[in-house]
Amino acid sequence: MFRIPSASGFFMTNHEEIMQRVLALAEKGRGFTSPNPMVGAIIIKDGKVIGEGYHRAFGAEHAEVVALRQAGEDARDADLYVNLEPCCFYGKTPPCVEAIQRAGIKHVYTAMIDPNPLVNGKGVAQLRAAGIEVTIGIAEKQARELNRGFITYFEKKRPWITLKMALTADGFIADVSGRSRYLTGEESRRYVKQQRQRHDAVAVGLGTVFKDDPSLLPLNRAGFIPQRIVFDEQFNIPERMQLVTDDFRRRTLILTTNMGKRAKLQHFKGLGVSVIETEADDFGWLNLEKSFNKLRELGITSVYCEGGSQIAGSLLANHLVDELQLFIAPKILGEGLRSFSGIMKSFEEAIQLHWLEVMQIGTDIFIKGELLPCSPE
Amino acid sequence: MFRIPSASGFFMTNHEEIMQRVLALAEKGRGFTSPNPMVGAIIIKDGKVIGEGYHRAFGAEHAEVVALRQAGEDARDADLYVNLEPCCFYGKTPPCVEAIQRAGIKHVYTAMIDPNPLVNGKGVAQLRAAGIEVTIGIAEKQARELNRGFITYFEKKRPWITLKMALTADGFIADVSGRSRYLTGEESRRYVKQQRQRHDAVAVGLGTVFKDDPSLLPLNRAGFIPQRIVFDEQFNIPERMQLVTDDFRRRTLILTTNMGKRAKLQHFKGLGVSVIETEADDFGWLNLEKSFNKLRELGITSVYCEGGSQIAGSLLANHLVDELQLFIAPKILGEGLRSFSGIMKSFEEAIQLHWLEVMQIGTDIFIKGELLPCSPE
Repeated sequence: MFRIPSASGFFMTNHEEIMQRVLALAEKGRGFTSPNPMVGAIIIKDGKVIGEGYHRAFGAEHAEVVALRQAGEDARDADLYVNLEPCCFYGKTPPCVEAIQRAGIKHVYTAMIDPNPLVNGKGVAQLRAAGIEVTIGIAEKQARELNRGFITYFEKKRPWITLKMALTADGFIADVSGRSRYLTGEESRRYVKQQRQRHDAVAVGLGTVFKDDPSLLPLNRAGFIPQRIVFDEQFNIPERMQLVTDDFRRRTLILTTNMGKRAKLQHFKGLGVSVIETEADDFGWLNLEKSFNKLRELGITSVYCEGGSQIAGSLLANHLVDELQLFIAPKILGEGLRSFSGIMKSFEEAIQLHWLEVMQIGTDIFIKGELLPCSPE
Repeated sequence: MFRIPSASGFFMTNHEEIMQRVLALAEKGRGFTSPNPMVGAIIIKDGKVIGEGYHRAFGAEHAEVVALRQAGEDARDADLYVNLEPCCFYGKTPPCVEAIQRAGIKHVYTAMIDPNPLVNGKGVAQLRAAGIEVTIGIAEKQARELNRGFITYFEKKRPWITLKMALTADGFIADVSGRSRYLTGEESRRYVKQQRQRHDAVAVGLGTVFKDDPSLLPLNRAGFIPQRIVFDEQFNIPERMQLVTDDFRRRTLILTTNMGKRAKLQHFKGLGVSVIETEADDFGWLNLEKSFNKLRELGITSVYCEGGSQIAGSLLANHLVDELQLFIAPKILGEGLRSFSGIMKSFEEAIQLHWLEVMQIGTDIFIKGELLPCSPE
């Protein structure tokens, strides 16, 4: 239990503080709620927490319901803090708006409107119509960051895409003969493994599978294991690869345009590896945009793309990157494999980024950026 | 005047604090002392500063002498703080060691031994022989950083070399048709102009002169103007260039292997532009190592090299880089001009760096690094 100082001068700060705690609760569901959002809820009365909860997993009770049950009768005239607008439709569970109304909540504080068109302001409208006060926008930036996958899922009709690249100081991902293991240091590789767990899925092109035979597993193998996706146009992935043979192979998903290899398909199915058909683009290559729509249909709201340069170039060219993560190794090659294949921009047409963050991670430099819209703002 | 707390627990901290002030005094001479070092001196008695001084310019009085004169008779039994070992030979001025002895200084605190073979411990030895206590190594790291040019001048028999490059996120210095103006933002360019003033000279290859017609001037044009060096193998620099025509042309120095263009040489001499002969390497190209030795002979202790990729590649290949400064612009080109020409390393033989510092400067990322020795340590 924590008490909220009553000095009215700190009132707004308290809203922020409480919402931070709500977000921390919501975070506990990470990995298990998709395509649902991560949601936390806290009920407060007379400066005391009388109920709290979070959405544990897809299909499970909503955070508001858990918190309301804990508060019980005390919920009457209490304040509810929740990082997402309460739902107002019958899905896997009954609408939270009705539960809030029934419990007699006085004031609902929320961080953001639900981008799901089934809600999208209707939840707030219903609460207000029932005489409940509603305040929107507390810690909205952090709330949007937390559920960026869920938001992108509705706003862009595809998962959130993070593109990760490990480069030399002069921009190469490998030397001229393709060698690159290990380009970055141990701390960076550890950081990458943590980042995997912050996405619903991790994806690579077949080239990377051939080259590195990666496991694409997160740091904590006892926790949530993201789906492991291979973009494999012709379903050429060898059966000996870790992604096909290891203990987590049920979390492997191969996207291909070639569903004609019956025996191999059958074999993979038997192993528990999913093979999903996707469309080809005009050049006969796998259509990335359509593939991501496919992943969205499977309930994947965020993908951590780990290259190679083929995939990286295509993602950039198609503006399919929400966040760019660069790990700059303390090495210079002079010549080697370029980071982004299939792109050749003039200086004036360069892909424009905005650097968000930079830090040293072990022996490397980590830079986080976002793409700016194609046309200058 | 500042007083030093007498609590003995803080004694060592005070030495550090005083030496920081000595270094700040020394810094005032920046740009004007080369090939002499920047030196500051403070004399303290009974916790009070009774004299201070710095080396203002090459040929001018040494810092110790200025401080001793200010202290006068009070210098007897006082402590002298100086960032470099006092000199013990007759150069442009008489030896400081003798002045210190005559003044009756009790204890000399210094940051580092003078790398000049004419001193190199002999100054300290003479002081000690005269019964003066000497403590060495206070704030040595910062002292070495301040006089890195002077130190390199003796330890490597060449000036300190900083290599600056402006790159896209994927490692290109220009697009495929060579366009790059301006790759980095205003704040980075401002920072570069400040960096120029922290070196005795700024250098570029002729390609960069052709492409950008740069002035290579520092931010504060009323202060010290570094020498502006062009590596120009065949003395092909056009007469119309800013470096040849502007008000600062007396600070321009062209290094060439071709002294046969008599009329042009005469014309440049008339303008006040220096043209210096240097040697060719085995491939007929300008020998960079010999050229830097030449610059050393001219009293230049530090050079800020601003590319292009030809020079950058040669500097790296010849291990002629003490500090690497990378400005990473928020742009991706996919294809373009590579940063370092003439190098092609395998992954195992990659040039190894050590990142020292990273920060955001305006819209760009600034990374500072140093080269590791060729063979792994």
